[in-house]
Amino acid sequence: MSVTPVDYEPTERTVPSRSRQRARYDRETVHSILDQTYLCHLGFVRDGAPVVLPTLYGRVGETLYVHGSTGSRPLLAAGRQDPGLPVCLTVTHVDGLVLAKSAFHHSINYRSVVVHGTAYQVTDEAECRTALDALVNNVVPGRAADSRPANAKELAATAVIRLDLNEVSAKIRTGGPNDDPEDLDLPFWSGVVPVAPAYGTPVPAAGLAPGIAVPDYLSAL
Amino acid sequence: MSVTPVDYEPTERTVPSRSRQRARYDRETVHSILDQTYLCHLGFVRDGAPVVLPTLYGRVGETLYVHGSTGSRPLLAAGRQDPGLPVCLTVTHVDGLVLAKSAFHHSINYRSVVVHGTAYQVTDEAECRTALDALVNNVVPGRAADSRPANAKELAATAVIRLDLNEVSAKIRTGGPNDDPEDLDLPFWSGVVPVAPAYGTPVPAAGLAPGIAVPDYLSAL
Repeated sequence: MSVTPVDYEPTERTVPSRSRQRARYDRETVHSILDQTYLCHLGFVRDGAPVVLPTLYGRVGETLYVHGSTGSRPLLAAGRQDPGLPVCLTVTHVDGLVLAKSAFHHSINYRSVVVHGTAYQVTDEAECRTALDALVNNVVPGRAADSRPANAKELAATAVIRLDLNEVSAKIRTGGPNDDPEDLDLPFWSGVVPVAPAYGTPVPAAGLAPGIAVPDYLSAL
Repeated sequence: MSVTPVDYEPTERTVPSRSRQRARYDRETVHSILDQTYLCHLGFVRDGAPVVLPTLYGRVGETLYVHGSTGSRPLLAAGRQDPGLPVCLTVTHVDGLVLAKSAFHHSINYRSVVVHGTAYQVTDEAECRTALDALVNNVVPGRAADSRPANAKELAATAVIRLDLNEVSAKIRTGGPNDDPEDLDLPFWSGVVPVAPAYGTPVPAAGLAPGIAVPDYLSAL
């Protein structure tokens, strides 16, 4: 077993019950996984049952921000509850399909981060603005400065919740299939099909003035 | 509002608190979203707190299957509990980044399915085999028949849980930015950047016999 740095102290629920060699607890790995996408799945408990919703997030240092309408149920719940709303926020990249000789050893190459903690509604206006910029820039780096900032009415309609990175783990699978030695001579193809998100040619909004060029930061996606 | 068919009866928790026009309850839409990917985020409650884990799934008719090691915690919990484990299973496709003139109207084009229900461990061996084939074929259509099926030892090490499609909703956003009329003359580019998963050239496993060609079903991805 290789030794990896530990920035986030492992807890009972961040140590996986299996494939422990895939777990990581260092800040560099966790931040890199969080910063390479913008979609998370946010879990919370409502009336005793789990709810998992896809939503956007942004990171500022050791804090993640999620936003929504002030009319949305989880954000209202976070705002009303004291001491906050227990959540689990999960981010997953699929990097490859792993095809083994046996059905059993089929797998996925992936990088994931799971954050456990308590979400609190942000009430400070400056922190809300910073969070909203981070959310927009997490989808398209550089975009926040190239759009109209939220006005007072929009800020009032937007709830922002924060979740600090304390109880955090990353999990990574890389490499080819782990076939059993006795299967290696079977006649099936085995290997990895790489997967990554692909960005198409930007489609201008209906009525966009023809003089407005596609910005450079979109070419960098 | 357009009228859409309803196969899954809406409930308090499958009717969104906002953007209700994006919700769908018909089987065709739900199945199509479920069948176009293989990764879900499975939520459950452990010690009163939410847990969200990325995992693979397969669909057979009106049932979803998820699998794992018999040593994994959620599956053990589903097996032990009577009457099963309350879960929320969510599947999300990102189809585009929506860049509006205002930061506020930035969005994502997406298709998602949220399934609420109770997961039960599958104990019938034939149903387990059907489920595992569906899981493999959901990742790569046609692959289950082109790999070695699970043997008795592998089956014994694999827990399969089932979740029936009863309390289900889909949610879809399409189209360009919804800018406010007074923002339309702002000098920022606006529009949609399409996003889709891209599959790279298959990489053969180390030591794969050179005579084994890349199968046709991989070209279809």
